[in-house]
Amino acid sequence: MDFKEKTLSTENIYNGKVVHLDKEIVKLPNGKEAVREVIRHQGAVGVIAITDSNKIVMIRQWREPLKKVTLEIPAGKIELSEHDDPEKTARRELNEETRFAADQFELVTKFYTSPGFADELMYLYHAVGLKAVKDELPQDDDEFLELVELSPKEVQEAISRGEICDAKTMMAVMFWQMMG
Amino acid sequence: MDFKEKTLSTENIYNGKVVHLDKEIVKLPNGKEAVREVIRHQGAVGVIAITDSNKIVMIRQWREPLKKVTLEIPAGKIELSEHDDPEKTARRELNEETRFAADQFELVTKFYTSPGFADELMYLYHAVGLKAVKDELPQDDDEFLELVELSPKEVQEAISRGEICDAKTMMAVMFWQMMG
Repeated sequence: MDFKEKTLSTENIYNGKVVHLDKEIVKLPNGKEAVREVIRHQGAVGVIAITDSNKIVMIRQWREPLKKVTLEIPAGKIELSEHDDPEKTARRELNEETRFAADQFELVTKFYTSPGFADELMYLYHAVGLKAVKDELPQDDDEFLELVELSPKEVQEAISRGEICDAKTMMAVMFWQMMG
Repeated sequence: MDFKEKTLSTENIYNGKVVHLDKEIVKLPNGKEAVREVIRHQGAVGVIAITDSNKIVMIRQWREPLKKVTLEIPAGKIELSEHDDPEKTARRELNEETRFAADQFELVTKFYTSPGFADELMYLYHAVGLKAVKDELPQDDDEFLELVELSPKEVQEAISRGEICDAKTMMAVMFWQMMG
């Protein structure tokens, strides 16, 4: 069966700082037409960072789309200059958000966050050999973050409370459990 | 520390079939202003359905945002009438997409797919007591799907090939492994 949809036209609705929105008209396999709304995103990385005392490094921050404070692993958007090498994003975001560096960044997995309407690809790295950074990168001036380190028990409590509540962080926790 | 951002204004950029886009101006904790792009989405469900022969039920379909064919667990958007009870969406989507029913739908977890720019909340259900549906619901006329059942080995191969590549499906596979 050929599932392919043929793009007949693309209307660019919005170009923002983080998201771009296109409205496409596609031709379906049966010849009919349909509308597809597509969010274009440059992709992102998340970093699993485990301290020597077996705690996972997380960031407490306000998330305006959810109108609440969440606990998430260090993460951020891939800049255009980093597109060929998302490991650079992992290294940069870990420095900016946590002041940790690592000997090595191992790609654990990658996944599309919401393939029905967005092309955002998330790379999940494990920071191996965690240590303090030597050269601190400047932090984003519109990000207000609190750095926390959580034990396995504290992670489970934060999931129960709903403070840990996003895909990449829950996946990071599952990989951490499997590592141990 | 108070992280809260105060919404100063909301400009609605787009209202579509699946996504709504707002551009917000927020006041940061330091008093400065920043732009937040927010995708509003009604939320979605994914269903973990395991057959008697220990295979996981998946859907092969074209994903226009990715411009490729993927393998994903049965899933779909929560309709407005189902908002108080996403289990209804699980039951409906499983019927529409796979022609399976279940004795019970157990909520395995829920998570925000991409909290930096979207409010989409994904509910992951386990369909317990899988059986053929008695009353088949009509299928969406813009969806072209192939139903497949994959063994644990075939799932790993599909992940390696990149055909299984989205957050909810990878999480479903991890929960299936933990169930076993």
